[in-house]
Amino acid sequence: MDFELKALTEPGNKMVELAEKHAAGFALTAAKYDRNATFPIENIEAFKKSGFAAGAVPEEFGGLGVASIHDCVVAMNRLGRGEGCTALAFNMHLFRTFTATRTLHSAVASGNTARQARSEDLLRKVGAGELIISVANSERGADIRTSRTLATKVDGGWLFNGSKTFATGSPAADVLAVRARYQNEAGEQRMGAATVPVDRPGVEIMYNWEGLGMRGSGSHDVVFTDYFVSDEEFDDIGEYGKFNAPTLAVASGSSLGLSSIFLGIAETAHQIAVEAIKERDGGPHYPMNQVSAAESEVDLAASRAILARSALFLDDYYQTDRKQPQGAIDTSPEASFKLLKNSAATKKFVMETAAKIVDRSLTLYGGGAYVGSNTLARLYRDVRAGQFMQPWASNQATELIGKVTLGVDPNEE
Amino acid sequence: MDFELKALTEPGNKMVELAEKHAAGFALTAAKYDRNATFPIENIEAFKKSGFAAGAVPEEFGGLGVASIHDCVVAMNRLGRGEGCTALAFNMHLFRTFTATRTLHSAVASGNTARQARSEDLLRKVGAGELIISVANSERGADIRTSRTLATKVDGGWLFNGSKTFATGSPAADVLAVRARYQNEAGEQRMGAATVPVDRPGVEIMYNWEGLGMRGSGSHDVVFTDYFVSDEEFDDIGEYGKFNAPTLAVASGSSLGLSSIFLGIAETAHQIAVEAIKERDGGPHYPMNQVSAAESEVDLAASRAILARSALFLDDYYQTDRKQPQGAIDTSPEASFKLLKNSAATKKFVMETAAKIVDRSLTLYGGGAYVGSNTLARLYRDVRAGQFMQPWASNQATELIGKVTLGVDPNEE
Amino acid sequence: MDFELKALTEPGNKMVELAEKHAAGFALTAAKYDRNATFPIENIEAFKKSGFAAGAVPEEFGGLGVASIHDCVVAMNRLGRGEGCTALAFNMHLFRTFTATRTLHSAVASGNTARQARSEDLLRKVGAGELIISVANSERGADIRTSRTLATKVDGGWLFNGSKTFATGSPAADVLAVRARYQNEAGEQRMGAATVPVDRPGVEIMYNWEGLGMRGSGSHDVVFTDYFVSDEEFDDIGEYGKFNAPTLAVASGSSLGLSSIFLGIAETAHQIAVEAIKERDGGPHYPMNQVSAAESEVDLAASRAILARSALFLDDYYQTDRKQPQGAIDTSPEASFKLLKNSAATKKFVMETAAKIVDRSLTLYGGGAYVGSNTLARLYRDVRAGQFMQPWASNQATELIGKVTLGVDPNEE
Amino acid sequence: MDFELKALTEPGNKMVELAEKHAAGFALTAAKYDRNATFPIENIEAFKKSGFAAGAVPEEFGGLGVASIHDCVVAMNRLGRGEGCTALAFNMHLFRTFTATRTLHSAVASGNTARQARSEDLLRKVGAGELIISVANSERGADIRTSRTLATKVDGGWLFNGSKTFATGSPAADVLAVRARYQNEAGEQRMGAATVPVDRPGVEIMYNWEGLGMRGSGSHDVVFTDYFVSDEEFDDIGEYGKFNAPTLAVASGSSLGLSSIFLGIAETAHQIAVEAIKERDGGPHYPMNQVSAAESEVDLAASRAILARSALFLDDYYQTDRKQPQGAIDTSPEASFKLLKNSAATKKFVMETAAKIVDRSLTLYGGGAYVGSNTLARLYRDVRAGQFMQPWASNQATELIGKVTLGVDPNEE
Repeated sequence: MDFELKALTEPGNKMVELAEKHAAGFALTAAKYDRNATFPIENIEAFKKSGFAAGAVPEEFGGLGVASIHDCVVAMNRLGRGEGCTALAFNMHLFRTFTATRTLHSAVASGNTARQARSEDLLRKVGAGELIISVANSERGADIRTSRTLATKVDGGWLFNGSKTFATGSPAADVLAVRARYQNEAGEQRMGAATVPVDRPGVEIMYNWEGLGMRGSGSHDVVFTDYFVSDEEFDDIGEYGKFNAPTLAVASGSSLGLSSIFLGIAETAHQIAVEAIKERDGGPHYPMNQVSAAESEVDLAASRAILARSALFLDDYYQTDRKQPQGAIDTSPEASFKLLKNSAATKKFVMETAAKIVDRSLTLYGGGAYVGSNTLARLYRDVRAGQFMQPWASNQATELIGKVTLGVDPNEE
Repeated sequence: MDFELKALTEPGNKMVELAEKHAAGFALTAAKYDRNATFPIENIEAFKKSGFAAGAVPEEFGGLGVASIHDCVVAMNRLGRGEGCTALAFNMHLFRTFTATRTLHSAVASGNTARQARSEDLLRKVGAGELIISVANSERGADIRTSRTLATKVDGGWLFNGSKTFATGSPAADVLAVRARYQNEAGEQRMGAATVPVDRPGVEIMYNWEGLGMRGSGSHDVVFTDYFVSDEEFDDIGEYGKFNAPTLAVASGSSLGLSSIFLGIAETAHQIAVEAIKERDGGPHYPMNQVSAAESEVDLAASRAILARSALFLDDYYQTDRKQPQGAIDTSPEASFKLLKNSAATKKFVMETAAKIVDRSLTLYGGGAYVGSNTLARLYRDVRAGQFMQPWASNQATELIGKVTLGVDPNEE
Repeated sequence: MDFELKALTEPGNKMVELAEKHAAGFALTAAKYDRNATFPIENIEAFKKSGFAAGAVPEEFGGLGVASIHDCVVAMNRLGRGEGCTALAFNMHLFRTFTATRTLHSAVASGNTARQARSEDLLRKVGAGELIISVANSERGADIRTSRTLATKVDGGWLFNGSKTFATGSPAADVLAVRARYQNEAGEQRMGAATVPVDRPGVEIMYNWEGLGMRGSGSHDVVFTDYFVSDEEFDDIGEYGKFNAPTLAVASGSSLGLSSIFLGIAETAHQIAVEAIKERDGGPHYPMNQVSAAESEVDLAASRAILARSALFLDDYYQTDRKQPQGAIDTSPEASFKLLKNSAATKKFVMETAAKIVDRSLTLYGGGAYVGSNTLARLYRDVRAGQFMQPWASNQATELIGKVTLGVDPNEE
Repeated sequence: MDFELKALTEPGNKMVELAEKHAAGFALTAAKYDRNATFPIENIEAFKKSGFAAGAVPEEFGGLGVASIHDCVVAMNRLGRGEGCTALAFNMHLFRTFTATRTLHSAVASGNTARQARSEDLLRKVGAGELIISVANSERGADIRTSRTLATKVDGGWLFNGSKTFATGSPAADVLAVRARYQNEAGEQRMGAATVPVDRPGVEIMYNWEGLGMRGSGSHDVVFTDYFVSDEEFDDIGEYGKFNAPTLAVASGSSLGLSSIFLGIAETAHQIAVEAIKERDGGPHYPMNQVSAAESEVDLAASRAILARSALFLDDYYQTDRKQPQGAIDTSPEASFKLLKNSAATKKFVMETAAKIVDRSLTLYGGGAYVGSNTLARLYRDVRAGQFMQPWASNQATELIGKVTLGVDPNEE
């Protein structure tokens, strides 16, 4: 009866149901993890046990078999309503397992048996609740085109050296997705990537995250020192210093998942404020309260709509229902940039609007929302994270969308 | 590859295709009708000929058989892109024929043969391209709850006396949908409604519309003087002075159709500006142009999304695919107000955002857009109409949404 | 008792009083000139007769002796309240006479007797109500750094060839201020300027202005064909293709005067809406009306404040009270760009906010405001002009302000 | 050379200079007090020593003799730039001493020797750096019209019972300004007020403030239990449950002082971001950075302007330069509500705009601003307090301004 996000597939429904159960529990301990700035490892443990961690893993590998990006986005929304930090950490994991399934299909189609085996292994482990993936890609002074982390060729592999930041969920990670600059045999600067175990020598999680918000997200620095990555684990992902649109496009689902978490935060803030006003004498009849409530309802409706539509578009694009090989998809830079434009527009709208809704919820609730222990005060700090997240931070999204709209290649100098 | 609205049913696709053809032609004469403030009757004639006028009429009555509100909304979007005035006039007609089909189903289910005959007659005429419906409901000093037009009981029917305003499309109308206050036998003030021919004595179209914009919409005053409406034509639609939510809910599709026209206007404005910038030396590379273009792309994405989602929700609510009797639908005031809240939120968002996009398109285009003969100058005037339209003008939408959200009955004093 | 702009000097008070009288009369004929798109020459005649046209001319030359930019800005505000088109035309004249006084002081101080004589002549004529100055600087495809109009050296002077646009007030002009590109003896591209009579061969006013709004402003194209400008009339104003900050800075007062006109338009729109609401049953008590009225009051307060402060800053900068030679003023590019940043910020804020206020006034007033003959409908069209005006259109203002703030030279490639 | 607030009187200049010195020091310890949520008593001690605490005390009583509200507002701006919590606490004190001077003049004029003696005593103590005033007016579930704290008549005075909240600066207070409901001899509910010592039995500061921001402001609850206030200390301030406009009007200066603190916070945030961008390779040339910087510059200009204009208006209203008795001032409810409208509009604009500027500064700075130890992260939390502060929280300001504008008495039911 309203604009709420809802799963559209059977496995999606199960996943969303699980998300709601988990979220209800996480909400109760969120304040504690926020206060102590510690990561709720127990929440990730719960995901492993319940099978939620294997939501996007095909059933044949032990997962729930959710093949719809849209439904994954809905599940992230429900997590976000309860507690944002676990959701942030899990989002990376979820969409990486998604990608692994796509990689598997593509490997099968192209007969790349090594890659097939690697993907199957990863999916099987995730399916068994044995493996959690985190991402350690951000770096100070770098953006999504660049990296100061260096991969140097050695016998049978590469040595990684460098320092990553905002490695959300790293305390619970079994493996880390990581990028590094390297030089190929032709002497060109390229960007490489690998997903590697944390229990190997040469990697240190710094446990130094103290954020304005999302304090329980474990977004620590991670330092790699002569960390060995084998040739099999190492992938080239494109020219260094450029937006590698096809590679980035793959992460569009993850970007929507992130946005969905922040929509969940905004929904909770709005609900808290509305419920509080309903309890107060004269609260629902005070016209200024009606105005604030109405403005947030409109903002929520638009945010939910753009998010759902964008996610369904991705499902359509990747033909998730057909389970066809990736080769059938238009992965040209041009098509990829258009896809990125759409997800960037969605993320920008949802992240900025979510922040507005939370801010307005504080106004609606009144001065009590400014007391530190009030949940709204926490959500006000948490929601501000969304606009910074890569890809695409708000200002960069504007640039990308503007350029693609006006026919300018974002990689043009 | 973007957020564009697209039909989802086969008949819908045909209707949208027709809309696009019509719109291309209408765009060429739009400036003339705007300058002269005359209604493009030829456009409505074209609708009758092409069968577009019977878009929402079931095939058995000679129509295209579009049963999806969503797809009708898409068709209106395409009309709006070409020319807004004809679209405005047609929207009323379209959703009235829609309602007629629903009324027919409900009459069949309840065994109301008189109403069944009346509905079939109307649908058959529309299906044959013989009948165009306009609406003459607005009045100065009245809102959707009230009417200064009075229906007085006489033998076998009612005499209508009063003056209507903003009767868009009236120059092409064969029948007019009109509301009037009346007193029932219990002495209660009620609201009545009828759809009546214009070729009957006692009705005069004043041909006095000279608007800021939408100058070709024929939104004239219509005066009723002792106009006779038979008992068979007359329907009670609820308590006078109240929001009759179930009745209003029926008009939700029409409200989305209106919004979709203005989205089309915004899309055209944006496209004109973007194409102009692309033609200019340095235009696409000027960062401020990129910013303006990006902001409108985001606004368009959100507007399209909320509109599509809202329309699909109505399809779901009215089970348009099942073609079931209306009895299966929750038509309680509470459910109806929630439905109205959603369409009011959608209309408010789309109408306000469309105006913003057109305004920004003028900025993007530059000073030349301020020359009166520039299409953007016309669109700037046209787009402002949207926020005034009932139900719900922007401020009233805020009030309605706020009250429903906070659990206050909008009919409460 | 509120934030209204008020003159601060005695001559300023007289000028503002005159402005109010004139404005009251102009308001009555504004609709006519708008409808016919003709320039109200009678209004300019009235200015000549009343002495208002000589407002900024020193008393010794027959003027009112207003030496305060702030007070001139206040006078323009009052004109704008009554009718915008005459005000737009007059603003150019007013600030040009202002500049003439400054030029005179500077010529006296530096012993430039030719320039002294020229300035005295102009001031004397304006003081006698014999001379009205218009500006013909805008060109299609050019901005304030460039000009397609060419000045070619001939014996004793220059031949001007080119086409100007938006020459507001040209129907009433005795002389036109005009810019042209020329090549100096060193072969460098430079920008030249002159203020020249319209009754000389080679200049044609095209009488082709048909705007979205400001239809009575006579903003016609003006074509120069081998128009002769003598060496004495011709001034170099800086490097071609660059923002010549010191030259532009001189026009800051004019930019504030323009802004003040649009503030006046917004004030009138707000007043019309508020008065209308006060007349309606229940109007003042409807909370949504209170919200709209309050938002405009806040916007008006901020607009008035930034405008007054910015104007007082200019008075301070140009030491208008001390009547000192211009030499004492910091006219470095750096200082000039900072000054430009401030007036650009003021213009941007006031022009955008004025448009918002007028738009909101239509909402407050309701659907009747959309009828073409309603004054609000005209103001809605008129107010949109402000953001286009040079210097600085809204987007260019953003660029300029951003660059100066971050220490980037706006003339840097 | 920009829109910066500047003192306009000689004593004001001295006070602002002192404010800048203090602020420079306070900035260094602000993070510590924020972390520990403790009040910086040492800062208040520094005020006592430097004479800053006696800024608004006439020279004859040992103060700096600042008689201009405008200049006090400028001084608060400078404090706000360095550290907001001390500034918040001090603002209450400053404007209370201001009021004491006005009360003194009025007492002298009316021959009220008791009140004269009380005022002189207070001013002398403040002048000697012996007395700091805090305010304990806010209460849960009450607004500026109401109070749950009760004053019960006893012999020679009143017993106060009740609990106050947000008593900013209470840890450093020597006396507390406090309001309570009481019943007069005619049985009417009235509002009473007193300024009473904290070292008297029956008052307890709860040391329980843990805010989202402004954590060092000592905004604790204060509980009064049978606290005795003598008849001499007790003042009637108007009808209970009503906006007592004349009484509230007196606090307008304080409201502007508060706003000025938050402007200072916004200025600092903007400066931090701009300086950071200037340091980064390519930072100043990135167009999106220019856009963000420009938008904040415009917002700052408007905020400074409205604040200065509003403060100067108060100086004019209260004739601070003439030092005339208050009797000459129009203290009618009507005049007072207009005055309140203006200060409410100013506060609303400045508080909301300051929050926008800080938010945009985080965007400009980038992800590093989200690290908890970054000053911007603290300012983001601090600046949100402004919109809650009474009078007038943002929503209530809208209501008040709207009603006064439309001629509705805010006290009307």
